[in-house]
Amino acid sequence: MNLLVVGSVAYDSVQTAHGSVDRALGGSATFFALASSLWARTHIVAVVGDDFRQSDLERLHQRGVDITGIEQVPGQTFRWGGVYSQHFETRTTLFTELNVFSNFNPRIGPAGAVADCVFLANIHPDLQLSVLDQCNRPRFVALDTMNFWIAGERPSLERVLRRVDCVFVNDEEAYALSGVGNLSLAARRIHAMGPRTVIIKRGEHGAVLFCEGKAQQMPAVMLDDVVDPTGAGDSFAGGFMGYVASQPHIDTRTLQAAVVVGTLTASFAVQGFSVDRLETLTIDDLAVRYDALVANLLPATVEWSRLRNQVRPVAVGVA
Amino acid sequence: MNLLVVGSVAYDSVQTAHGSVDRALGGSATFFALASSLWARTHIVAVVGDDFRQSDLERLHQRGVDITGIEQVPGQTFRWGGVYSQHFETRTTLFTELNVFSNFNPRIGPAGAVADCVFLANIHPDLQLSVLDQCNRPRFVALDTMNFWIAGERPSLERVLRRVDCVFVNDEEAYALSGVGNLSLAARRIHAMGPRTVIIKRGEHGAVLFCEGKAQQMPAVMLDDVVDPTGAGDSFAGGFMGYVASQPHIDTRTLQAAVVVGTLTASFAVQGFSVDRLETLTIDDLAVRYDALVANLLPATVEWSRLRNQVRPVAVGVA
Repeated sequence: MNLLVVGSVAYDSVQTAHGSVDRALGGSATFFALASSLWARTHIVAVVGDDFRQSDLERLHQRGVDITGIEQVPGQTFRWGGVYSQHFETRTTLFTELNVFSNFNPRIGPAGAVADCVFLANIHPDLQLSVLDQCNRPRFVALDTMNFWIAGERPSLERVLRRVDCVFVNDEEAYALSGVGNLSLAARRIHAMGPRTVIIKRGEHGAVLFCEGKAQQMPAVMLDDVVDPTGAGDSFAGGFMGYVASQPHIDTRTLQAAVVVGTLTASFAVQGFSVDRLETLTIDDLAVRYDALVANLLPATVEWSRLRNQVRPVAVGVA
Repeated sequence: MNLLVVGSVAYDSVQTAHGSVDRALGGSATFFALASSLWARTHIVAVVGDDFRQSDLERLHQRGVDITGIEQVPGQTFRWGGVYSQHFETRTTLFTELNVFSNFNPRIGPAGAVADCVFLANIHPDLQLSVLDQCNRPRFVALDTMNFWIAGERPSLERVLRRVDCVFVNDEEAYALSGVGNLSLAARRIHAMGPRTVIIKRGEHGAVLFCEGKAQQMPAVMLDDVVDPTGAGDSFAGGFMGYVASQPHIDTRTLQAAVVVGTLTASFAVQGFSVDRLETLTIDDLAVRYDALVANLLPATVEWSRLRNQVRPVAVGVA
């Protein structure tokens, strides 16, 4: 059961309150594939420049990622630079240099075309459509997007949405995409555009899974030591899709478990700069953190029946 | 087991996307007491003007609230007016008329002085101290405050913090109070100021309970029909303190259950303008919503062992 991701492989320069890195390995497909490859063989389709370090390809390969779809062409690799505020409330982009990525036209080779799960990272919806046209009836397709495409490329985005099973958006993107300001209502409108599964990413506040008419909440892991949030959303999607691709059947319970895996994965990703922490992540690490999360989750540790039976409520209306 | 609350009883004028109300019953002590009185006999100490409607006193009395500590004096009742943005992201205060509240000097009569739990709503910390001086060794004291006092009345606030068991703050208030920007670290600093229990209120994102060295997360109830968030925090505190006051022993498990009760209570409060929904709330309503919350809470419905056993992870590092 193979997984295809099409997105960016980049060099990031990031400053946070905990330090900075320059020309560090980044990009949506990179974070995604390092996360997903814990669970499923992952094939990346991306483009890099001739400045791209062989050692970085090797890092992906070492983690079991199939890098044969990463095309190296003359020019510079996609570069992004940003700085986070003290408590990570805001992120300011310092520069975006598309470089070789500006002419990215994904060509899906035989290994990618037969992947049974596909993740379309945040690229132009026309390119996302082109990828789907080159794929051979995947079992499950998910898409990431952003307000830039929602506002500027709506017809294309709507075309690709009709062909995907799942979409990842944050609150604001859900509102923009649906035109309504309530999350449940927004999810219903997005369902009507095609995707049966809508996942709302809320950063440090967790995620919500909308499918089969239900809204399921997933709290985030509380962390003392966030170092760099870059790539959190793609790591979430990678954990999610990797788990989905590892399963023989994809039903609601699969998607629920996948959201748990994605949340746990992202919680590790943000504890290091670049892909540093993802690169050494194990499924055992996820299991330990799962136990800690559940142990500290209130409604799960309080039983209503016990809670109530200890109480003699006061009479109301007869005072 | 009685509960004392000292705070405001007010008339609010509120506009939201769902409508508006004018001179509607509000104030911190009002929301608190209507929430807490489901669980414990609650005595309000507050001041209102001669414009205060007898029918509003009657509404509190009908719900079992002890209103004998509400003093009525010549002048106008405290009034607040505000408008919420479309999706409740922001609230703009249109006016604040302290009126008779500007000379509020809480006098705790015999019924209040013997209360074994006390809630000091968001008033000047000197007044909060004065209340404690008039109380007879309560079992459990909690305090609400805001950035205005944190910035402007720090010595007084620190004095009262040393004498309370529990403090309710939001993220920003916790950062301002502690001087650090990480929530766990902030809670540790606030513990060192006195309160053994720190509760972080995060609105639609739930709450976090810090006590006994543990951080326990409580997600909020997802709602389709928020009408008016005014009083949510005080309703949360009311549910929390009412439950605490109803318990023979106050230990960590009591506080955990109390956070669940507070969260459920606040979720109803915001579904109506003013106190409309709180006024008809029952413990059965809370129980039904508890079941729905737990049923839709992801880590609680996914078992890691089952999740993992279905997977044959791919080999990593040997690709």
